[in-house]
Amino acid sequence: MKEDWFLQACSDIDTDSLDQAKHHQQQLTKPPGALGAFEDIAIRLAGMQCRKLPEIEDVQITVFAADHGIADQGVSAFPQAVTAEMIKNFARGGAAINVLARETDSTLNVVNMGTAFPIGELSNVIDKSIASGTNDFSKKPAMTREQMLDALYAGAEMADDANHHCKDLFIAGEMGIANTSSATALACCLLDKKAEEIAGPGTGLDKKGVKKKAKVINDALSFHKVKNSDALTVLQTFGGFEIAAICGAYIRCAQLGIPVLVDGFISTAAALLAKHIQPESSSWFFFSHASAEPGHKLLMQSFDEQPLLDLGMRLGEGSGAAIAIPLIKNACALHAQMATFADAGVSEKNS
Amino acid sequence: MKEDWFLQACSDIDTDSLDQAKHHQQQLTKPPGALGAFEDIAIRLAGMQCRKLPEIEDVQITVFAADHGIADQGVSAFPQAVTAEMIKNFARGGAAINVLARETDSTLNVVNMGTAFPIGELSNVIDKSIASGTNDFSKKPAMTREQMLDALYAGAEMADDANHHCKDLFIAGEMGIANTSSATALACCLLDKKAEEIAGPGTGLDKKGVKKKAKVINDALSFHKVKNSDALTVLQTFGGFEIAAICGAYIRCAQLGIPVLVDGFISTAAALLAKHIQPESSSWFFFSHASAEPGHKLLMQSFDEQPLLDLGMRLGEGSGAAIAIPLIKNACALHAQMATFADAGVSEKNS
Repeated sequence: MKEDWFLQACSDIDTDSLDQAKHHQQQLTKPPGALGAFEDIAIRLAGMQCRKLPEIEDVQITVFAADHGIADQGVSAFPQAVTAEMIKNFARGGAAINVLARETDSTLNVVNMGTAFPIGELSNVIDKSIASGTNDFSKKPAMTREQMLDALYAGAEMADDANHHCKDLFIAGEMGIANTSSATALACCLLDKKAEEIAGPGTGLDKKGVKKKAKVINDALSFHKVKNSDALTVLQTFGGFEIAAICGAYIRCAQLGIPVLVDGFISTAAALLAKHIQPESSSWFFFSHASAEPGHKLLMQSFDEQPLLDLGMRLGEGSGAAIAIPLIKNACALHAQMATFADAGVSEKNS
Repeated sequence: MKEDWFLQACSDIDTDSLDQAKHHQQQLTKPPGALGAFEDIAIRLAGMQCRKLPEIEDVQITVFAADHGIADQGVSAFPQAVTAEMIKNFARGGAAINVLARETDSTLNVVNMGTAFPIGELSNVIDKSIASGTNDFSKKPAMTREQMLDALYAGAEMADDANHHCKDLFIAGEMGIANTSSATALACCLLDKKAEEIAGPGTGLDKKGVKKKAKVINDALSFHKVKNSDALTVLQTFGGFEIAAICGAYIRCAQLGIPVLVDGFISTAAALLAKHIQPESSSWFFFSHASAEPGHKLLMQSFDEQPLLDLGMRLGEGSGAAIAIPLIKNACALHAQMATFADAGVSEKNS
């Protein structure tokens, strides 16, 4: 089961419902197209939910946290202890994603995929630890093949859990010191770029720090020579446990028919891996925001979509996606609740 | 009172609270700056509300509707009857702004500033009609001086009402067939541009229609020769009753200390008039979204800010601002509810 589940077909988008929703949009009391992106969101969701009037009520936010061996190379502005400390912060409700989950009435799960520092027993953290962080990919592949498959599957299990609880939108968040280095290396392979075209400040490196980070990643790219390999090999070589889990969750959501709202740089790298592994999966993705991390823009070019927001966020945790939840809900509310020209007795456009 | 109230001083922004909020932001468990625009929103609101931890709970949305004589020149894709029909749609709860007011728990008021077609008695529409629409500004000034002062004051009264009901954020919306022509003429005067640099499709003109609209406006600009006059003369010559009311409401909000969330093209033209009439007022403005109407970008260059959203909306009614309400509320929630590094025992950035 852990071997090939991700190759199974994704859910179909219902074209009849898409067409009905498109037709319905044209009846609403507004100039055609005047609601911009909100019209497209409602129409796409109609196709996903197989009904003319889609609804988003129960949003699942799942934050996957893990440590990265590459942190040993001094590629992050924060010490590695922060990954475990932030898991505790999530557990106590003090992080940005906790606030946003409360404000948007979303369910928040936190999954420990493996930290370098122990977090102890935390009743509201799901333990799916694979190891105490990945290997330092400047020296050897980040994971074994089995670890990668386990991490993908752990993500899929969280998507299954969301499905079991009838969630109608899935957001993955991540936490992991040095995970922008992992995502940068992944993006370099998937987009055939050099690290200096992708690498950014992450949690706050200065120019010199970014330059060093790019060198560490370029050296690792030269060392492993997997740039043109398949996505699974690339993920095994440079990925993080949380990135693999997000990738697995995204693919499984697409198989189960749960729309995905993708967060920023790290999550979009996971989304692109998902698209490479199971190309149909990307039909189920909405993109929430343009990250301030420079590589995000290049990753987005691999998808047919623009992110909804561009507010200079670069926090991770799923925070950019959580900020966009009201946009998705309002798109559905406008689509379902606005009067039609006929209902309201409003004159239509001059012919 | 109706003569010069708008010249009175605006409320002060409290710099101590600004500084306290800035300092507080730096303690929160996230990389410095990682929340992008949300940090600035919370800090600005702290200064406006004179407290370290600002809150936005009760939002007032007031839609001002009026007709425009310039509609006689065939500058809109919709017939003039739609203004009155849409007021009835607002009254019955079927328009986009009704949906968004409900979804964001905001109070919605609708103010009839004067329509060409009668709307009859509607218990939930506030009647501040000045005339059955403005004059056709291709032939004479849109309003008399007294009508303009009445319209500005009507807006101020709605801001007073919001203040009386302890509202902590004010959104003005507008409805008025041909009001993009009015706003375009105003923008041409305030920005010293020709109509073809500003005019757009409005509710849906085709290329030929936009060209004709620009010619009508350029001819009117040549006819009146008020391009370099003061903002009040410009408003009297080309404005609408709803645009004057919004301008008055914005200035009065700034005097009362109520933050304003500006909507799109028409509202930003009103905001720029407000800035010309009472320059301090613009410190109280947040800008919600980049309208798809092409002139909006040029108007925004007169302010030091970027709009929060860019989602291709061009509906009016205050809809773009209403869509941004959750962003403002979430900025406050993140600022107030996130744990600090000290509280959460999270390590700070490497020095």
